[in-house]
Amino acid sequence: MNISRPAVHPVEAPPLTDAAENRPRVRMKDIQGMSGTAGGLALRLCQFAFALAALAVMVSTSDFTSVTAFCYLVAAAILQSLWSLSLAILDIYALLVKRCLRNPRVVCLFAIGDWITSSLTFAAACACAGITVLIGNDMNLCAENHCPSFETATAMAFISWFAVSPSFFLNFWVLASR
Amino acid sequence: MNISRPAVHPVEAPPLTDAAENRPRVRMKDIQGMSGTAGGLALRLCQFAFALAALAVMVSTSDFTSVTAFCYLVAAAILQSLWSLSLAILDIYALLVKRCLRNPRVVCLFAIGDWITSSLTFAAACACAGITVLIGNDMNLCAENHCPSFETATAMAFISWFAVSPSFFLNFWVLASR
Repeated sequence: MNISRPAVHPVEAPPLTDAAENRPRVRMKDIQGMSGTAGGLALRLCQFAFALAALAVMVSTSDFTSVTAFCYLVAAAILQSLWSLSLAILDIYALLVKRCLRNPRVVCLFAIGDWITSSLTFAAACACAGITVLIGNDMNLCAENHCPSFETATAMAFISWFAVSPSFFLNFWVLASR
Repeated sequence: MNISRPAVHPVEAPPLTDAAENRPRVRMKDIQGMSGTAGGLALRLCQFAFALAALAVMVSTSDFTSVTAFCYLVAAAILQSLWSLSLAILDIYALLVKRCLRNPRVVCLFAIGDWITSSLTFAAACACAGITVLIGNDMNLCAENHCPSFETATAMAFISWFAVSPSFFLNFWVLASR
């Protein structure tokens, strides 16, 4: 009785839901780098590590507070690292419980968040690059300034932005193609 | 008999081809701002006008060549205005001959071009903003510099970038959702 009960009437339902569940999963699973995949987790950790490196290098210079753009880089790097760390934790959770993060609202939230944080990081990196080039090449004031530190922090911020871009594009792509 | 015959077999076919032809056209035509629409042409002209304004204002200052970021803004504004002008001309042609520019390869090219030019314009605007804030707020050197011109050029570049973003997102969306 225990065996016949589930076998009698819900037989039609499992294959249907199975097919409906499997088709998107297989198509989506192909793209490494999306939220909930090992590639996505690697991207998030990369973003987090480089944003943290940019933050650490910039804060290690004593006089970064005298330039607005450097303070802005610090703020942007803090935001980027917090965002990437949160999504990395979410990815780890999704990988552990084998759930996929493909709810359209969640993907939309990820895409918007990625766009905002990547724009801020990129803007900060560009502003710092402009000032670093101004100090180093245009005014030749590197002797009095921590040019190598500024350059390193800028490069780290650019790499962090470079790692956010695939996440954003994949999320946006998933959102548009659903 | 007349009622029963079409209900038996050919009724299913005509609506199918009709729906297949109509659905993408209606869906695509709805989005103003895409290439080949009046909204798209307006966006392109807006991008072109603001990029040209940024270029003109920056070139009108005599000493912009002494700062690398300002030279970079000039280069980025030239590229942006040329790109936007070309696509505006293409949009005018598409509107006049009533052809739609929805070939996937063409849309892909537009999306890549928009992404590159918008990134360059945004980077230039951010670099100039960083330097303008450094000169004006951090070092209080506005008396010796053309701060209002630099600020205006930066603002124009930001507005131009702001007008490119919808074009890029719409092209990318069309590319992903086809």
